[in-house]
Amino acid sequence: MLKLDFHPAGRHFLQIPGPSPVPDRILRAMSYPTIDHRGPEFGALGLSVLDGIKKIFKTAQPVVIYPASGTGAWEAALTNTLSPGDTVLMYETGHFATLWKKMAESLGLKPEFLGLPGIEGWRRGVQADQIEARLRADAGHTIKAVCVVHNETSTGVTSDIAAVRRAIDAAAHPALLMVDTISGLASADYRHDEWGVDVTVSGSQKGLMLPPGISFNAVSQKAIAASREAKLPRAFWAWTEIIDMNQQGYWPYTPNTNLLYGLAEALDMILGEGLDNVFARHQRLAAACRAAVQAWGLEIQCADPAVYSPVLTGVMMPDGVDADAVRKLIYERFDLSLGTGLGKVKGRMFRIGHLGDCNDLTLMAALTGCEMGLRLAGVPLAGTGVGAAMEYLTEHVARPALKAAA
Amino acid sequence: MLKLDFHPAGRHFLQIPGPSPVPDRILRAMSYPTIDHRGPEFGALGLSVLDGIKKIFKTAQPVVIYPASGTGAWEAALTNTLSPGDTVLMYETGHFATLWKKMAESLGLKPEFLGLPGIEGWRRGVQADQIEARLRADAGHTIKAVCVVHNETSTGVTSDIAAVRRAIDAAAHPALLMVDTISGLASADYRHDEWGVDVTVSGSQKGLMLPPGISFNAVSQKAIAASREAKLPRAFWAWTEIIDMNQQGYWPYTPNTNLLYGLAEALDMILGEGLDNVFARHQRLAAACRAAVQAWGLEIQCADPAVYSPVLTGVMMPDGVDADAVRKLIYERFDLSLGTGLGKVKGRMFRIGHLGDCNDLTLMAALTGCEMGLRLAGVPLAGTGVGAAMEYLTEHVARPALKAAA
Amino acid sequence: MLKLDFHPAGRHFLQIPGPSPVPDRILRAMSYPTIDHRGPEFGALGLSVLDGIKKIFKTAQPVVIYPASGTGAWEAALTNTLSPGDTVLMYETGHFATLWKKMAESLGLKPEFLGLPGIEGWRRGVQADQIEARLRADAGHTIKAVCVVHNETSTGVTSDIAAVRRAIDAAAHPALLMVDTISGLASADYRHDEWGVDVTVSGSQKGLMLPPGISFNAVSQKAIAASREAKLPRAFWAWTEIIDMNQQGYWPYTPNTNLLYGLAEALDMILGEGLDNVFARHQRLAAACRAAVQAWGLEIQCADPAVYSPVLTGVMMPDGVDADAVRKLIYERFDLSLGTGLGKVKGRMFRIGHLGDCNDLTLMAALTGCEMGLRLAGVPLAGTGVGAAMEYLTEHVARPALKAAA
Amino acid sequence: MLKLDFHPAGRHFLQIPGPSPVPDRILRAMSYPTIDHRGPEFGALGLSVLDGIKKIFKTAQPVVIYPASGTGAWEAALTNTLSPGDTVLMYETGHFATLWKKMAESLGLKPEFLGLPGIEGWRRGVQADQIEARLRADAGHTIKAVCVVHNETSTGVTSDIAAVRRAIDAAAHPALLMVDTISGLASADYRHDEWGVDVTVSGSQKGLMLPPGISFNAVSQKAIAASREAKLPRAFWAWTEIIDMNQQGYWPYTPNTNLLYGLAEALDMILGEGLDNVFARHQRLAAACRAAVQAWGLEIQCADPAVYSPVLTGVMMPDGVDADAVRKLIYERFDLSLGTGLGKVKGRMFRIGHLGDCNDLTLMAALTGCEMGLRLAGVPLAGTGVGAAMEYLTEHVARPALKAAA
Repeated sequence: MLKLDFHPAGRHFLQIPGPSPVPDRILRAMSYPTIDHRGPEFGALGLSVLDGIKKIFKTAQPVVIYPASGTGAWEAALTNTLSPGDTVLMYETGHFATLWKKMAESLGLKPEFLGLPGIEGWRRGVQADQIEARLRADAGHTIKAVCVVHNETSTGVTSDIAAVRRAIDAAAHPALLMVDTISGLASADYRHDEWGVDVTVSGSQKGLMLPPGISFNAVSQKAIAASREAKLPRAFWAWTEIIDMNQQGYWPYTPNTNLLYGLAEALDMILGEGLDNVFARHQRLAAACRAAVQAWGLEIQCADPAVYSPVLTGVMMPDGVDADAVRKLIYERFDLSLGTGLGKVKGRMFRIGHLGDCNDLTLMAALTGCEMGLRLAGVPLAGTGVGAAMEYLTEHVARPALKAAA
Repeated sequence: MLKLDFHPAGRHFLQIPGPSPVPDRILRAMSYPTIDHRGPEFGALGLSVLDGIKKIFKTAQPVVIYPASGTGAWEAALTNTLSPGDTVLMYETGHFATLWKKMAESLGLKPEFLGLPGIEGWRRGVQADQIEARLRADAGHTIKAVCVVHNETSTGVTSDIAAVRRAIDAAAHPALLMVDTISGLASADYRHDEWGVDVTVSGSQKGLMLPPGISFNAVSQKAIAASREAKLPRAFWAWTEIIDMNQQGYWPYTPNTNLLYGLAEALDMILGEGLDNVFARHQRLAAACRAAVQAWGLEIQCADPAVYSPVLTGVMMPDGVDADAVRKLIYERFDLSLGTGLGKVKGRMFRIGHLGDCNDLTLMAALTGCEMGLRLAGVPLAGTGVGAAMEYLTEHVARPALKAAA
Repeated sequence: MLKLDFHPAGRHFLQIPGPSPVPDRILRAMSYPTIDHRGPEFGALGLSVLDGIKKIFKTAQPVVIYPASGTGAWEAALTNTLSPGDTVLMYETGHFATLWKKMAESLGLKPEFLGLPGIEGWRRGVQADQIEARLRADAGHTIKAVCVVHNETSTGVTSDIAAVRRAIDAAAHPALLMVDTISGLASADYRHDEWGVDVTVSGSQKGLMLPPGISFNAVSQKAIAASREAKLPRAFWAWTEIIDMNQQGYWPYTPNTNLLYGLAEALDMILGEGLDNVFARHQRLAAACRAAVQAWGLEIQCADPAVYSPVLTGVMMPDGVDADAVRKLIYERFDLSLGTGLGKVKGRMFRIGHLGDCNDLTLMAALTGCEMGLRLAGVPLAGTGVGAAMEYLTEHVARPALKAAA
Repeated sequence: MLKLDFHPAGRHFLQIPGPSPVPDRILRAMSYPTIDHRGPEFGALGLSVLDGIKKIFKTAQPVVIYPASGTGAWEAALTNTLSPGDTVLMYETGHFATLWKKMAESLGLKPEFLGLPGIEGWRRGVQADQIEARLRADAGHTIKAVCVVHNETSTGVTSDIAAVRRAIDAAAHPALLMVDTISGLASADYRHDEWGVDVTVSGSQKGLMLPPGISFNAVSQKAIAASREAKLPRAFWAWTEIIDMNQQGYWPYTPNTNLLYGLAEALDMILGEGLDNVFARHQRLAAACRAAVQAWGLEIQCADPAVYSPVLTGVMMPDGVDADAVRKLIYERFDLSLGTGLGKVKGRMFRIGHLGDCNDLTLMAALTGCEMGLRLAGVPLAGTGVGAAMEYLTEHVARPALKAAA
């Protein structure tokens, strides 16, 4: 077996905002032998995960599961609903919103990219009023879809999807609403049906605590209707045959069986803990993390407290400090992986993930690694972030601290 | 954990022509914790598998690895090289050739479908002379690609790819040669470079002994050149950025990390056994399986001994016998999964897989299950196929029987 | 990782009479991280396995679980109940009965060894009338214990424990009854309480389908009372403190945590299938195996059909054939492990295990391996044992063939 | 599968002084299917681990591996070398030394128990001069063995074994030297041959990072000679037959196969890191831990800096604080397991394990959990131990921080 353990001993701390650490329970579930994807056991598995995943998206409508990583689900959302040359309204919230826009261009669509000027756009969520204004101006309804990112993995900023829904409704515009919550799902509250989202895009390797390799489109009836008219060529991503065969728990082509085992286990874990408890846990850890950053005297990438991400926190470096050099030092000295700055903020910030299978001491390990690394890198710190985070965690009791014995 | 074991005890025998049984070694390798796909350990993993997989395809050119199942790699081959409305010459060798053609239509291409009449086309491989004739007739070179299936998973018939190459050359036609060897790779000899293939499509869940979830495009320089002109929209499947980032062992979007662990282990196993030994083992087991079918007095789906598949054997049922009822009985009574008849031969045959992590006794277990099941189903048998297979295996010594201790 | 796969591909068939093949489910359960053996989770685990294991022994009395392999539990039975120089009545049923007697001598006891003359003793079970006669003759009650083996792993012969109980009672003798069912437990019906056994010795690596490493003493109140008087020195094996701490689910010293995970899973599997179904499955496979041996024209080691073992079948070789040479050939050519002849029958027989996680096709794989190997070794066979076994299995329907979906 | 995860999410931190956290690599190795313990693959495994384990004990003499947990190896050391009524000189260093003495009594030996008065004996290592004096006084050589504990798991105090050796030599006394380094092996430097130890006792679940279930006797020629005269009854623990069969890599009875897989992997990891690096890592983490305790203003159980344990640190509570209540709070709130106070110090201290698969951030996680828990429990702290530990770790660079890629 390939030896990948570059560090001499002890567990690696994977605190990037995805892939998040995969719990042992899920790795064990994934090691169940691969079965016949046309046999009765598979059908039982398929129905089970297709039912459970709807609870995560808070939807009663179909959720399409792809045997492909998350970027593919972006493509699926676009190719199933749109036609060559269609205008789509997208919003620059960060690097991933930018990549999705770039994909739309590659696929022959015409994205319009709203946003705030300069780096400001990367520090605040979607401004729904800009969307409403643009849609009101589109009297001819040339805009076919509004595409926004719910939790920007590159910045640690969330966006208010309900507000975007209200903006579209206020403009009485027929555009589809498509949302990427790849890194938000199962960590931040998300309501596909209540918010009237037409296509929600997500992936496995974040709040679902799985390895990368499966991704999702939750779809509305309006989106399915649109797919009947959409002219972009599609085959692998086409919803219709998948949704049809999913009725019996099967897929038209070979599904990613072992990741579906993992998904079944993840659903069992998340629904067992309770979605509200999961969200509260993320909020609590995120608050402790921010307390640390503030105590260090460093700036948080997200400039609007109303949209702090519960998934990750972006930490901005003082001028002149190379964030990637700090990250490298922390990785090499403390066996801790942090997220790099992407795109416009490359080298200027790093990202601490606190999502998925994370608890108080995992976070504290990460924060001690950061504080020691920042000190070793010579970054001037105002105080001890570790102390501030401990204070937050002791003052804010986690509920439930203990599950009853099974 | 979801309990999927419908049978009361003992190991399931998965003898479908893919997914093939995943060895414990690979399941163990896949349970290594997911790592940062941007970190140095991942780069080492990436370079290692990208180097090893070339040996399997027998190519010195790039092999693109997708975090998606095999059907996606079909789409990748077409969208990277072709433009809307392009004519492609395809050949009906069975159900999967038919599905690939259907996909070409969905993507806006114009496939021409050569083949032998009726069911005959499903019992013999590609007839290269038909291809040569058609290409010679295409003086204007409207045909942009010739697409054939190397090992038809639905029938147990292989095709002579070198002969197809010679046919194209004889016609002095510039069409690309694209080959699906999803179920042939690492089980049947395959030579991407020597045979002048432009795009070879394959997947993980067959001879590579992995779960489904990753797939491949081995590409020629000519194919890469074609991709610069090709107009089909593409993003997720686009080769260029992937090949570029692969230089350092990384991917532009999140790769399927844990399946790559499995791939590293599979490469270690296959290259450790030696490709020629792997091929000889498959040929030997396939011959023993056919000896059984012939002793039963049943017909083999493949009608041309020159192109018997080393991967699977199609077993035709006498008139009036529902092959799927036989399969169901065998599954329920003997915990043995066999492949169903697909498309034109649905209900008329079943398929015995003997690929990947298979040895003499695994095959014999499958054949005893078939023989007992056929008897219980009332199918008249001429004699004992199990006896014939045992005779074949004892008369044909496996080399090497034993590896030296590591 | 040490590479132990000496054969080039495919699954090894482990058909020795223990260790039996460990199901994947159990291996996965054993990979749960080791926990604090003094913490509350461990207590829950301990209580769960201590409760479940009683059902397997069919007892309401304590079962002591040792973090040691089976030979240790032999020693525990003797040292807890006896004093130096005590006479114990043992019965020669085979190699393991002989080893237990040898252990008794090493520990300073005086074993008397009953049995039939020569090799006969190794082909029939305990003759209870011999025991009764000996006990009747022991008017002074110098015999402190009767020790017999329930399922002789070295021969494939079981013994009638209820008859031994009746013999002791008929003689109105106060001796303890101690029974080794290391290889019988959870494969052959066994009733600790109903049969009035004082100490039952067993181990993990047979019918319980676990790796070796834990072993058992099921004890009666009479045995516990005897332990208060017994003078053999003991510490590690002493029952009292263990039974006491087991009330809360803990052990006085560090238990074998990960094997206890496996035990919890094994209990779930066995009790889920149902003990009666488990026993019927073993009987059916054993009968099919004997049908094969008889069709080969070879002699079964067990000469009394009333006590055929459901766990294993001893196969005697014709004069002049070295059984171990046959075994070696079968191992090297067919990746099948069979049990060697032990002690008095070394080189004259081999043993086929059909216990634990075994089903029809596993057995058939083993029998085809034997038949091919016997042929290659030049052993003259009367006919096809494989055919006879297939006939038996098709004529005797397994119930239940399928579990309902979970 | 039994669900043992009492806490809602995230990884448990197991910081007791054994069982130590088992690395994933070892758990994976242990999930290799159980093989025939009489077959050639097993022989290769056996020879490999028997060779490797000698390097860990720093001996060229036999190391006996038992399929039993560590307490059994204590018994083995005594029963192989001594006779009923023999006097042994033991030394009270803590709870485990006391338990070993108690075992000696149970086995019919006459232990003399040296030590310092009251609790002092539990805060300093063996005082070799006391041993020398006692041996000088034993002109008749009635003392047959000197038994000491190298690393007292109950206190965090080590003892100077070389000094004990010198004491015996100075007294020119023929007593055997027997040492328990169950929790010291592979964490603290240990030299079986150089220190002239006759029997070293150890176990798997500490520095070797394995689950409990195998244990060791490293033996000298003098000890083997003594075993020929020793009269304590023994069978399971008897060295001779084991050492004899070990020549070929086998054991006389069924070994604990899957734990031996784990041992092979552990040896690979430890010898790969390098024993000196392993020891330095433990020293560094232990020093950081002590820095934390001192900054809290709490007392360390070990009162002599010369014999601080690199394996664990005992933390004494101020008067009136129930250490177990603090431990319980920390377990319930922070999913962190700490060691309880044992015997004389029950309720007065807790123990932090920092052995085996431990690194900087694992330790920091444990220390933050302790500091938060101590605060919540109302224990007055002089300052931040977490801060002090971070300072120590940043000022003392670990070497090597990174292994080269494999």
